[in-house]
Amino acid sequence: MGTDIRVHEVYAGRVLQGAGARDLVPDETERLGARRVLVVAAPSSAGTARDLADRLGERYAGTFGRPAQHTPVEVTADALDLAREVRADALVAIGGGSAIGLGKALAVRTGMPQVAVPTTYAGSEATPVLGETESGVKTTRRDPALAPGTVVYDPELTLTMPRGLTLTSALNALAHAVEALWDARASAATRAFGIEAADGILTALPVALDHPADVDARSRLQEAAWLAGACLAQARMGLHHQLAHALGGTFGLPHAELHALLLPYVMRFNLPAAPDTASRLARVVNGDPTPAVAALAALHDGPTTLEALGVPRAELRAVAERVAADPYPNPRPVTADAVEELLLAAW
Amino acid sequence: MGTDIRVHEVYAGRVLQGAGARDLVPDETERLGARRVLVVAAPSSAGTARDLADRLGERYAGTFGRPAQHTPVEVTADALDLAREVRADALVAIGGGSAIGLGKALAVRTGMPQVAVPTTYAGSEATPVLGETESGVKTTRRDPALAPGTVVYDPELTLTMPRGLTLTSALNALAHAVEALWDARASAATRAFGIEAADGILTALPVALDHPADVDARSRLQEAAWLAGACLAQARMGLHHQLAHALGGTFGLPHAELHALLLPYVMRFNLPAAPDTASRLARVVNGDPTPAVAALAALHDGPTTLEALGVPRAELRAVAERVAADPYPNPRPVTADAVEELLLAAW
Repeated sequence: MGTDIRVHEVYAGRVLQGAGARDLVPDETERLGARRVLVVAAPSSAGTARDLADRLGERYAGTFGRPAQHTPVEVTADALDLAREVRADALVAIGGGSAIGLGKALAVRTGMPQVAVPTTYAGSEATPVLGETESGVKTTRRDPALAPGTVVYDPELTLTMPRGLTLTSALNALAHAVEALWDARASAATRAFGIEAADGILTALPVALDHPADVDARSRLQEAAWLAGACLAQARMGLHHQLAHALGGTFGLPHAELHALLLPYVMRFNLPAAPDTASRLARVVNGDPTPAVAALAALHDGPTTLEALGVPRAELRAVAERVAADPYPNPRPVTADAVEELLLAAW
Repeated sequence: MGTDIRVHEVYAGRVLQGAGARDLVPDETERLGARRVLVVAAPSSAGTARDLADRLGERYAGTFGRPAQHTPVEVTADALDLAREVRADALVAIGGGSAIGLGKALAVRTGMPQVAVPTTYAGSEATPVLGETESGVKTTRRDPALAPGTVVYDPELTLTMPRGLTLTSALNALAHAVEALWDARASAATRAFGIEAADGILTALPVALDHPADVDARSRLQEAAWLAGACLAQARMGLHHQLAHALGGTFGLPHAELHALLLPYVMRFNLPAAPDTASRLARVVNGDPTPAVAALAALHDGPTTLEALGVPRAELRAVAERVAADPYPNPRPVTADAVEELLLAAW
C-alpha cells in the first residue's frame, strides 16, 4: 500500500480569462500592492505593452523588451539591472514562453510578485518550472515561487498569432495534455484537465486556423492551453517529451514545431498501451485520434518531418539508444529498436 | 469588456488519493509539524479512527466522536474544549460532511492545520465554505482558512458505505458537477472538473451499486466526488441548489436524498437552455442524460418523491414563489409557475 497513491498539489493562484481581461491587469497589480510595475514584453507584444503602460499610469516603471528563448542568464541579468534602476516592485510579463520565462527568472531572484499575460499556447505560466541557459548549458528548476500568482488570459491578444505558431503551439499544448492522460499516476484533477484540454484543442484549432480572428475559438484554445500547462505542472511527462528533449537539445530544434511533428508518431506508438487514454480521445474526435492529430500536424506550412528540420538520418539510432537507456515513465516499454523505428517514420 | 471575465482562484492544497492512502495520514501530520493530533470522527468511522490513533503513536492526542449534522455551535464548543484539554496542535477529520464540517469549524477557530479524510461523496473537504447552526439558525461563511490543507481520499474507506448513502451521496455530488457545467461564468478548469466528475459518477455509480466492494469503481466515484466538490467551491450554484435550500430549510429534509430526488427534474427543466452542457452530458451517457440520471435516482430504496419525504403538496406554490422571487444565476429564467410545475412533478 502507498505505492499507488496519486498526489495532486496546487499552489495559491488566480486566473482571469476572457475577452478584454487584459484591461484588468492594472487592477491586479494594485491587488498585489505594486507601486512600480516593470513590464516584460516580447517585441511582438510591444503594442500591448504600450497600452498597459498607459493604463498603469503612475504605477508604470519601465519595459524590458528583449526576452530571449531558453532564458539565457545574461539577458536575465540585463533585465534585473533595469528592474533595480527603475525600482520595480512587481512585474507583468506579456508574450510567449520567452517573456513568461524571463518573468519567472526575475521573480525568483527578487521576490517580486508577477502577473503573466500569455499570448501563445506554451503553458509556461501554469507551471512552477523554469529552464535557464548559461554558456549554452540548460538547467531546469522547480519551485512554487516560480509560478505567477496571477495569470490573465485574453483571447483578443491571440487573434493575430501567425498561422504556423497557432498550429504548432496548440499541438505542443496537446502534447502536454496527452502525456498527462497516459501518465498512470496522474491525479483525477490532472486527467480532467487533460481531456478538457484535448477536447478544446481538437475542436477549436481547426476553427482558429480557418478563422484566425474568431474570438470564441481563440478563447477555447487559450483555455485549453491553460489546462494543458497545468497538466505539464502536475503529471510526469513520458516518451514524447523525452524524444523532444533529446532531439531538441542535440540539434537545437524549434520547440513547438518539433513537438507538433512528433506527437502523432508517439501517439501511434503509445495509445495501444494506454487504452483508457485512447478511448477518451476517440470520444473527443469521434474516431481514431492518431490520424486526426496527424492531419492537423500535416497542415503546417513549415517543416513537418525530422529531415526537413535538418536532423541527420544517421544520428537517429544514437538518439534512440540514448532515449531507451534513460526512459521516462511511459505506458509502453521503450526499446532502442522501437524508438528508432518511430524516429525513422518521423524522419 | 470585463463583464464576461471568468475568475478561477485556488488556494494551496494537497490531495492524496488511492487505496491505502489512509496509511499516509501520520506522515501528513508530521509534514504539518504536528505533535498532538486531535482526531474528529463520525461514529461510523470509529474503527478507522482507532487504527489512525495506533499509527499516530505518541502524536495521538485524543478523539472527538460526536460530530453532528449542520455543525451546531454547541457541539463545536464541546470539541474545542477537548482540543484545549489535550493541547491539540493539528486535527484529522474522518467521515462525511458532519465530521469534515466540524474539522473546519475547529480549524478556523484555532488556526490548527487540518487533514480531511472523507468517507462519503459530500465534497465539503474541497470547499472553503462552512455552514453552522446556532439556535436553529444556519449561517454560512466562506474563508480560505476553512479549506483543509491536505485531503486524503482512500476508496477502501468507502467499501462499506450503505447502498442508499452511496446512491444519494453520489447524485448529490453529480448535482454540484451539473450546476457548475451550466454556470455560464464557470472557468475552463471548473468545466473540466464538472465533466470529468459527471463522467466518473455516471460510469462508476452503477458498478458500485452492484458491487459495493469494487475498489476501482469506488476509487473513480471518490475522485469524481472530489472534483464535484471543487466545482461547488468555484462555480455559482443555480436552481437546483436554490430549490434544495428552500425545501430543505423549510421542511428539514435529508440533504443527499433531497438532492438526488430533485436532480433529474431540474435537469429536464434546465438542459434545453444549456445546450453545451446537454451535449457534453449526452456524450458521457451516450444518449439523453436526463432519463439516465432519473433511472439512477429511481434505484433508491428510500423516498424518491417529495411526497414520500413528507413535503405537503399545499406548500409547493409558496416554495415556488419564494424561489422565483430571489433567483440564483440559472441558464433558464425561473418563474413561479414553471417552478411549481417542476415541484409538482417531483412530488
